Amino acid sequence: MQIVRHADGTFHWEGVPVREYKQDGAAPFKDVTRQVLFEAEGLPAQLRYFEVAPGGWTTLERHEHVHAVMVIRGRGQALVGDQAYDLELHDLVSVPPMTWHQFHAASDAPLGFLCMVAEDRDRPQLPAEHEIESIAKPLKR
Amino acid sequence: MQIVRHADGTFHWEGVPVREYKQDGAAPFKDVTRQVLFEAEGLPAQLRYFEVAPGGWTTLERHEHVHAVMVIRGRGQALVGDQAYDLELHDLVSVPPMTWHQFHAASDAPLGFLCMVAEDRDRPQLPAEHEIESIAKPLKR
Repeated sequence: MQIVRHADGTFHWEGVPVREYKQDGAAPFKDVTRQVLFEAEGLPAQLRYFEVAPGGWTTLERHEHVHAVMVIRGRGQALVGDQAYDLELHDLVSVPPMTWHQFHAASDAPLGFLCMVAEDRDRPQLPAEHEIESIAKPLKR
Repeated sequence: MQIVRHADGTFHWEGVPVREYKQDGAAPFKDVTRQVLFEAEGLPAQLRYFEVAPGGWTTLERHEHVHAVMVIRGRGQALVGDQAYDLELHDLVSVPPMTWHQFHAASDAPLGFLCMVAEDRDRPQLPAEHEIESIAKPLKR
């Protein structure tokens, strides 16, 4: 398929399934969907679109592979390491290796973002229950 | 840098230089800029932002590496192989290996698009002068 049409204003694409963010029930998250936009043969990377509904958040996790993120819808906040950042349309976020990170949508807006990752990548690690509070502290939630 | 701010509505990013599309004077193009948004260590791919001004166009070329493209500003047209496609916001375009391609902005709007490519890639080939007319025929220009 050489062209995949975006359905005007929906952030859905023709023939691209809107998936559960994670199938693994063990990792906590809230109101997140995942769409794989590109995973072409001959490309060592994938481009995915994640959408976090208002008030939702992705899993707090870390891994060796890096994330290259661009916001393309709405706004929210990112935790990256020991800092939290407010996110607006088209802001870019780099998540370095083994850095705790989490994305939150605003309470009154979704947060939709592209995330480029290597095709070949390691699985995320989750924090231990007793670590979560201090890791998430910069978010002030 | 973990966050790079987009300057609201401009499609310019803090500290990201807006470059000439090509430095090589041999390849024809018109009114195109290039910004490299992500080329992180540990990522085998880059994400670039190209912007074609109204009435402008990229070089007609082909290469072994593939392009994964998302429109994020304006509208225009893409030639991919023997077909031309109208492009609207958030449409996706895949350019397969060794496929002639060219992007045109509309006459009254820019065309801004993300393009994901492998970090390690071959150089583009240009058509011979006598081939251009038949390759570009689907564009009906």
